[in-house]
Amino acid sequence: MAVRSWVVSANDPATDFPLQNLPYGVFRHEHSTRIGVAIGDQILDLRACATDGLLRPIASEWVGACTSEVLNQFMALGPPAWSALRRQLTVLLADPQVQSRVEPLLVPMRAAEMHLPAQIGDYTDFYASIHHATRVGKLFRPDNPLLPNYKYVPIGYHGRASSIVVSGREIIRPSGQTKSPTATEPVFGLSRSLDYELEVGMFVGPGNPLGQPIPIDQAEQHIFGLCLVNDWSARDIQSWEYQPLGPFLAKNFATTISPWIIPMDALAPYRVPAAPRPEGDPSPLAYLKSDDSTHTVIDLKLEVYLQSEKMRKSEIKPVQLSTGNLRDLYWSLAQLFTHHASNGCNLRPGDLLATGTISGPEQGSEGCLLEMKHRAEPIKLPTGETRAFLEDGDMVSFRGYCQAPGLPRVGFGECTGTINPPNSSPV
Amino acid sequence: MAVRSWVVSANDPATDFPLQNLPYGVFRHEHSTRIGVAIGDQILDLRACATDGLLRPIASEWVGACTSEVLNQFMALGPPAWSALRRQLTVLLADPQVQSRVEPLLVPMRAAEMHLPAQIGDYTDFYASIHHATRVGKLFRPDNPLLPNYKYVPIGYHGRASSIVVSGREIIRPSGQTKSPTATEPVFGLSRSLDYELEVGMFVGPGNPLGQPIPIDQAEQHIFGLCLVNDWSARDIQSWEYQPLGPFLAKNFATTISPWIIPMDALAPYRVPAAPRPEGDPSPLAYLKSDDSTHTVIDLKLEVYLQSEKMRKSEIKPVQLSTGNLRDLYWSLAQLFTHHASNGCNLRPGDLLATGTISGPEQGSEGCLLEMKHRAEPIKLPTGETRAFLEDGDMVSFRGYCQAPGLPRVGFGECTGTINPPNSSPV
Repeated sequence: MAVRSWVVSANDPATDFPLQNLPYGVFRHEHSTRIGVAIGDQILDLRACATDGLLRPIASEWVGACTSEVLNQFMALGPPAWSALRRQLTVLLADPQVQSRVEPLLVPMRAAEMHLPAQIGDYTDFYASIHHATRVGKLFRPDNPLLPNYKYVPIGYHGRASSIVVSGREIIRPSGQTKSPTATEPVFGLSRSLDYELEVGMFVGPGNPLGQPIPIDQAEQHIFGLCLVNDWSARDIQSWEYQPLGPFLAKNFATTISPWIIPMDALAPYRVPAAPRPEGDPSPLAYLKSDDSTHTVIDLKLEVYLQSEKMRKSEIKPVQLSTGNLRDLYWSLAQLFTHHASNGCNLRPGDLLATGTISGPEQGSEGCLLEMKHRAEPIKLPTGETRAFLEDGDMVSFRGYCQAPGLPRVGFGECTGTINPPNSSPV
Repeated sequence: MAVRSWVVSANDPATDFPLQNLPYGVFRHEHSTRIGVAIGDQILDLRACATDGLLRPIASEWVGACTSEVLNQFMALGPPAWSALRRQLTVLLADPQVQSRVEPLLVPMRAAEMHLPAQIGDYTDFYASIHHATRVGKLFRPDNPLLPNYKYVPIGYHGRASSIVVSGREIIRPSGQTKSPTATEPVFGLSRSLDYELEVGMFVGPGNPLGQPIPIDQAEQHIFGLCLVNDWSARDIQSWEYQPLGPFLAKNFATTISPWIIPMDALAPYRVPAAPRPEGDPSPLAYLKSDDSTHTVIDLKLEVYLQSEKMRKSEIKPVQLSTGNLRDLYWSLAQLFTHHASNGCNLRPGDLLATGTISGPEQGSEGCLLEMKHRAEPIKLPTGETRAFLEDGDMVSFRGYCQAPGLPRVGFGECTGTINPPNSSPV
């Protein structure tokens, strides 16, 4: 059986934050912002641990990085520092002999406000799910859903870093230019086709200097950890603006991420062998080719929930819209990373690389509402309401977790946002 | 005649940096990094001015921002602070009575190393020249060069902030996937179609909160100043990767900017009435419409020079490849700004918005090599060499300046980069 923590809530089988997880985040409590680690329903304050000498077995430079107000400095240190701190945190939270010293440094999650975990320099969004690319492609190009480059190039584009917000922050419905197929001119007004996109994000650990690519077998050493990402999208703005340079205002009004970053070490037990590419698909070019015998992916389950305002008022719980799995991607995380740096583009600690919408092949695994247009029936909520796209007051929540026989659940907590009309609250 | 400076080189008619310019930059000299102002062939050290009490007429908070190592804090202050400092700097550099106090605070440009002027949070690149969009569109879509959205939407996309470098830094030729039209599969290797793009950049001054658009009549209050931008592009990578999400690795390996940012106040005397839109073109939608009677553009002349390695060895000066003018854009700077924030996207002090390649209608005003494919003759250099795209050792230099009867030349200095093969120098 798994090692247990003296933090009782960490041993609840339903928690996302057992002793085996120890995800990093940044929280505010009593007028001060600190790095913390989630454990059950508590946050362990790393700055307080450092001040109290509880991180003493670790190099002092590494401890210094833990006392910052963002994780960038710690991310830059790389796997040796990450593993060393993780070992020490496991001791602190498992050993009953230190409980009396560590317990006063816990802050209840409900008393803390979560912030963005890092200063995100650049945000890149990929398009790594072939099921998403195919379903969306069918809507725009029925005869030619998947473009010829898809199976060779891990398609990606740069998103907006400034409008990344942490889970819980309200999402204001954007305005923009839209043009109906029958109109002769576009109009400017509120988007009527607001969508979510279910994604996973990688935070960059050590970066690479400009001009120096990252070989595929070293890529995972540069990944600090994973978070959930909701890449909110205004489909009506997107379809009018996206050619020829890609999505812009359709996406950059907001992106929500989960506050907790799960370290790669915590995800390692949930790795499974990667499925081979479908028969007839081309082999990846050499720079994107891992050793097939060791090529694994993370079996990370994903869930999307929706709660309308009417449901909330009637105290009806959020309903599950779809499920997905990180292992269903066409491109691995390492391939995305290596491709990004293959031209010498420099990645920096704290940069965010997201997978793009994660969808599976079957109905029920569509990672955004746009893809559900293929369903025979529209989405029906318990209140009798239907949904093609998001309405004001809708709350969208993602969950993501790993679970396997004999292993605890390891998850992200929530990644949530509620749609608000503009100027609904004083700024 | 214009007011003269006691800095003799500032009164040379050929200088880009007369008393009427006073552009901001960040320089390193004697192991310390400071904000400076260009004057003739000298840099006035703003931190030293602050320390010596020479900025006393200005609010102390504003002076504090001048002592930083980047301009972001000063950019955030807005037009009142910018104008106040500009007035004081003009006094310091014009009044012979203070010469003896100010002269020791000058650093010769040749003794200083220029850095990026700001920490650039997000970099956005537009596509505001209809002449560029049409010429490039013809290459990709001969029958349909200009897409239906062009005259309604100021098309833009997010670029990479991490790989923006200051003038003078070498540019390493990127590798990437390319596919010739006749090949069945792509290959990975060095780009053979390396290009420059002649652009102007705007640095954001005060930003806007997430969810709050910027009305068109307020947009210019948010522009701190302009710089030159070379958005290096690998055309062979671009044509294979760009669909459906736009350019990515074809652009993000490097972007060069000029070290000096010209304040909007220095450019004001060179404003001219905007040309009306061509007969038959749609009127901009209301949110992009300025009062036509006051709508002006900046008459900013642009020049592109090339010097091959062979030319350099033979001491042959760079040759001019093309000229352009900022006033030739289809969209104004204010329109680009307002469109960007129209969905509530938050712009932050120090963010960079570039115009996209600036081209004119006639031959000789193409803002990139790709457009010159339309010419009957290939580019011929004085050495007898020809160029379709850039070769290793080629140095590309942009110049940009305003000049008008009775007014001095106000310019950016150089925006230069030289193409190098990978691993040509130890890192």
